[in-house]
Amino acid sequence: MKTLDKVNCISDVKKLDITELNKLSGEIRKFLLDNVSKTGGHVASNLGVVELTIAIHKVFNSPEDKIIWDVGHQSYIHKILTGRKDRMHTIRQYEGLSGFPKRCESFHDTFETGHSSTSISAGLGMAIARDIKGEKNEVVSIIGDGSMTAGMAFEALNHAGDIKSKMIVILNDNEMSISKNVGGLSKYLDRIRTAPTYGKMKDDVETLLNSIPAIGKTMYRTAERAKDSLKYFLLPGILFEELGFKYLGPVDGHNIPLLIKTLNRAKLVNGPVIVHVLTKKGKGYKHAEENPDKFHGASAFDLKTGKALSKTKGVKYSKVFGDKLYDLAKNHKDIVAITAAMPSGTGLENFKNKLPKRFIDVGIAEQHAVTFAAGLASQGLKSYFAVYSTFLQRGYDQVLHDVCLQNLPVVFAIDRAGLVGNDGETHHGVFDFSYLSHIPNLIIMAPKDKKELEEMVEFTYKYNDGPIAIRYPRGVSVEKDELITNNEIVLGKGEMIKEGKNVAIIAIGKMVDIGYEASLKLEESGLNPTLINIRFLKPIDNDLIKKVSNEYNMVVTLEDNVISGGLATSVNNELFKYKYKGNLINIGLPDEFIEHGNTSELFKKHKLDADGIYDTIINSIKA
Amino acid sequence: MKTLDKVNCISDVKKLDITELNKLSGEIRKFLLDNVSKTGGHVASNLGVVELTIAIHKVFNSPEDKIIWDVGHQSYIHKILTGRKDRMHTIRQYEGLSGFPKRCESFHDTFETGHSSTSISAGLGMAIARDIKGEKNEVVSIIGDGSMTAGMAFEALNHAGDIKSKMIVILNDNEMSISKNVGGLSKYLDRIRTAPTYGKMKDDVETLLNSIPAIGKTMYRTAERAKDSLKYFLLPGILFEELGFKYLGPVDGHNIPLLIKTLNRAKLVNGPVIVHVLTKKGKGYKHAEENPDKFHGASAFDLKTGKALSKTKGVKYSKVFGDKLYDLAKNHKDIVAITAAMPSGTGLENFKNKLPKRFIDVGIAEQHAVTFAAGLASQGLKSYFAVYSTFLQRGYDQVLHDVCLQNLPVVFAIDRAGLVGNDGETHHGVFDFSYLSHIPNLIIMAPKDKKELEEMVEFTYKYNDGPIAIRYPRGVSVEKDELITNNEIVLGKGEMIKEGKNVAIIAIGKMVDIGYEASLKLEESGLNPTLINIRFLKPIDNDLIKKVSNEYNMVVTLEDNVISGGLATSVNNELFKYKYKGNLINIGLPDEFIEHGNTSELFKKHKLDADGIYDTIINSIKA
Repeated sequence: MKTLDKVNCISDVKKLDITELNKLSGEIRKFLLDNVSKTGGHVASNLGVVELTIAIHKVFNSPEDKIIWDVGHQSYIHKILTGRKDRMHTIRQYEGLSGFPKRCESFHDTFETGHSSTSISAGLGMAIARDIKGEKNEVVSIIGDGSMTAGMAFEALNHAGDIKSKMIVILNDNEMSISKNVGGLSKYLDRIRTAPTYGKMKDDVETLLNSIPAIGKTMYRTAERAKDSLKYFLLPGILFEELGFKYLGPVDGHNIPLLIKTLNRAKLVNGPVIVHVLTKKGKGYKHAEENPDKFHGASAFDLKTGKALSKTKGVKYSKVFGDKLYDLAKNHKDIVAITAAMPSGTGLENFKNKLPKRFIDVGIAEQHAVTFAAGLASQGLKSYFAVYSTFLQRGYDQVLHDVCLQNLPVVFAIDRAGLVGNDGETHHGVFDFSYLSHIPNLIIMAPKDKKELEEMVEFTYKYNDGPIAIRYPRGVSVEKDELITNNEIVLGKGEMIKEGKNVAIIAIGKMVDIGYEASLKLEESGLNPTLINIRFLKPIDNDLIKKVSNEYNMVVTLEDNVISGGLATSVNNELFKYKYKGNLINIGLPDEFIEHGNTSELFKKHKLDADGIYDTIINSIKA
Repeated sequence: MKTLDKVNCISDVKKLDITELNKLSGEIRKFLLDNVSKTGGHVASNLGVVELTIAIHKVFNSPEDKIIWDVGHQSYIHKILTGRKDRMHTIRQYEGLSGFPKRCESFHDTFETGHSSTSISAGLGMAIARDIKGEKNEVVSIIGDGSMTAGMAFEALNHAGDIKSKMIVILNDNEMSISKNVGGLSKYLDRIRTAPTYGKMKDDVETLLNSIPAIGKTMYRTAERAKDSLKYFLLPGILFEELGFKYLGPVDGHNIPLLIKTLNRAKLVNGPVIVHVLTKKGKGYKHAEENPDKFHGASAFDLKTGKALSKTKGVKYSKVFGDKLYDLAKNHKDIVAITAAMPSGTGLENFKNKLPKRFIDVGIAEQHAVTFAAGLASQGLKSYFAVYSTFLQRGYDQVLHDVCLQNLPVVFAIDRAGLVGNDGETHHGVFDFSYLSHIPNLIIMAPKDKKELEEMVEFTYKYNDGPIAIRYPRGVSVEKDELITNNEIVLGKGEMIKEGKNVAIIAIGKMVDIGYEASLKLEESGLNPTLINIRFLKPIDNDLIKKVSNEYNMVVTLEDNVISGGLATSVNNELFKYKYKGNLINIGLPDEFIEHGNTSELFKKHKLDADGIYDTIINSIKA
């Protein structure tokens, strides 16, 4: 019988001895790969924390002890051990398990995550709550070295180190975010990993002490060398200790007995403690160990070869953007590309490899990325920050305060806008129109397809009067001949895709294509709708809306953003100016967080597919 | 002749010798106090950087060398030395000099600031721009120890320490943000300031080395003590050095020759360097030295006594909030109050002093504050984060992702909403409705006066089904008997202040009072407008709007937020549902950044005062 078959809840884990736990970890890897190779999901990070998760549940008593998984995509093993083994084949699928911690799934998921670097803040809140209530439980935040780059993790460390409430932070150090990690902190962790041993240190320190009375140039160099030896011997985690944490480690994150011993030691510390654990992303699966980047978030793959099962047809928007920007940058020396730890996801790999001096990866640090881009722009360079829609939320204040207030020509290339699919609630980019459209000076546009994205990127280079955001979806661009036009991109101007009468559909971005599909269906019902690609959310095309207001008795807005603050809002406010008296239908996402599932399921559910749009319009006409 | 009379631009500063520079610093203090005691402004922080600013302009060549003032409220001396001495009497006044760096004022203001902790990011952008362009200038960011608490400063240090571009960060350490600074980093800086001297260190280290072969319990304690001595001798700035910076200091920030020498040394460092400067807030003016908090941002005051010249009548909204929350917390042990370095500004001083265990100051760290509040709420506590409207912009992602997505009952007490006056563009809270209204699950309300704020705070305690934001303005509450009602606060319900006909004015928050004034004027013109206090921006009162839609041929929305995404947007979208065919006027702030000046001037300029509202309505009726 397999050990995993005996494990249905965490009390079962606690009964196992080390030999059985080691066996369990092997079985879990196999089980995980069997499932995730079919569903797709976060492979490498979960393979990296098998032993760590087992050790955590051996040592701590969830749910009394609070376990918080930073980012949360590495919580699959935790789900397997906390009663969700039988549903693992549904992970990330519509109506199945989430790929992230969800409080509605289990009491063992204490705090929902998805964006990075929140776990220390949340954990500290739980620790203080415990103290106020006079309770005794442990609080354990597990955070990667990549997540440590983001400022809010530092804010939380700085606070926790000061108020001295008991909490355990496990630093899961795999030297990566999605790509290889960057930053001073990352180099610091490298040095801890490779610190010299005691013998060498003692020699060096004695030399140093002898040299103190007369530190000249040579002696200075000796002293510097000795300092380096000394500090990592005496103070391997000095950076954390200086902030007020006790530091334990580094320890091998694949050695279960050592992890158990160290975590038990951490429990004895009466204050904030950081446990530095070294893990390997993709551990135990050759393809993932060799390509942890590719196996970060993978689609379904062949277990033997590691190759993706289905090839997507067409070209991804990310690649279209990255290639076009690289093309421009070859000829224009003022272009600088910035990413926050997403060189590959944002399509910038080629730019990175060929123009490394003008490619800058700031790590998971969106706030800094935005203001850094503003700094570059203030000196006459053209900076492009390529970023996922939900992650730019972290830089909202900086977009407003550091870029738009000074009207600096920074370009925000906003990828993964709209519904992204299986990552779900925390990753859908359905708020960007709303958090950007009210910011003065900012131009906002969205392309209907690949060709238009290229033209818009070109437009952003020529336009130098202020900041611009281009927003485009995850996945591949449709290429419908009927939608290809030769209308030049003009600031604040939309284009008429086809001109009919009575009903005008005003769509933006990806929704132009779906609106087109819907319009074909409407034609079958005898209607002859007009389809407008508005292109610019801001400034909105007043002339076109005025024309629509005058000539149509029904206006439909169409967007993959929430209604509030998006295209609907802009168009409605304009129509009011023209005292529009016709029917108005706003189609977009509702005022709620959207669950996970593949995008076609989600579009269908929220009536944003051609059928749904058709129904909404027909029903409104009948009403 | 005064030395200051000879200084009209920075080349004049460069000609002066140390004696003259010392004389200049005394004269500048007097000049500064003479002016700011009349205009009001940031007294203490500017008095603290007189010598530092003089030394910076002696050593560096602005504008070729780029000087960036973090937060920027300490840039007055810089303004005096860069050609703006003659306009200092206009500072922070309508159409006068800004209280913050402004690029339109001078080439010497390279980057605009207002919110904290942006200067290292901006400076690093400028440094990389210089490298890409092959230029040679210096980049100098001056940042306070308070600003260092915010995560984005850490993100920038982490990046700068890694890529090794030449830049100088001056850490202006005065042990304060507005209040006494908090956090692990602050304690670390304390230890540097009070580090032991060489002799003590050598003894300790020798004891330590002798003890290494057999570290028992006693020896361990010796070792710990020796470590402490050693590290601050060898490595006073180890925390910064570990991140990749060269550290110089600490140096006395009021000693001009020493500052000049140290800054010249910093110029020789070929990479990122941090210069740790110790200054005293309020230096040279007794009242400000003794009460730097009070003299952070002061209104006009009597130079001799330090007392404010005009007493404001009425009670401040901040105090109303703070007192009410304290009252509730006395009886409800689950209430926790959180501030991000603003215990006094947010009215929480009393709470802090009397219930210190449930009062938490996280430092300048809004992102952490929000998620920390979510952590508390996840464990059943009721957490209140009191924060200024523009500063909550920093926590936008966390509000959405960590609080609202999990629907946790956190309360955001949003102070300084609407126009704040003399601080200007970076401080007006005119975007909060827009950046919050599209977030699912969040309730948003705004009180019309003191009594309603108290009732709303009480409502937030009783309502436990999800997050709530209450938004209220800077300054004192009006107390108009005519506006006092006894309508209980009911979720999503507004109240009718007075019922007339034809014209319905729907106002929110502070604008209810101004709307009332306007309605009186309209009555004088023979109209009989209805005035509605909508109370809740979200959920909006559908019934009331439906009634308005049916019964009135003109609807006016009234808010001190930008139109896009605010009350206008919510009401318009509702009116569309009811196919409203009447006239609609949206009164609010325009799609632009609003300048500084006192609020009455700004309300008048933007036609948000009673006269302006009256005119807009009358003109629309005539049109």
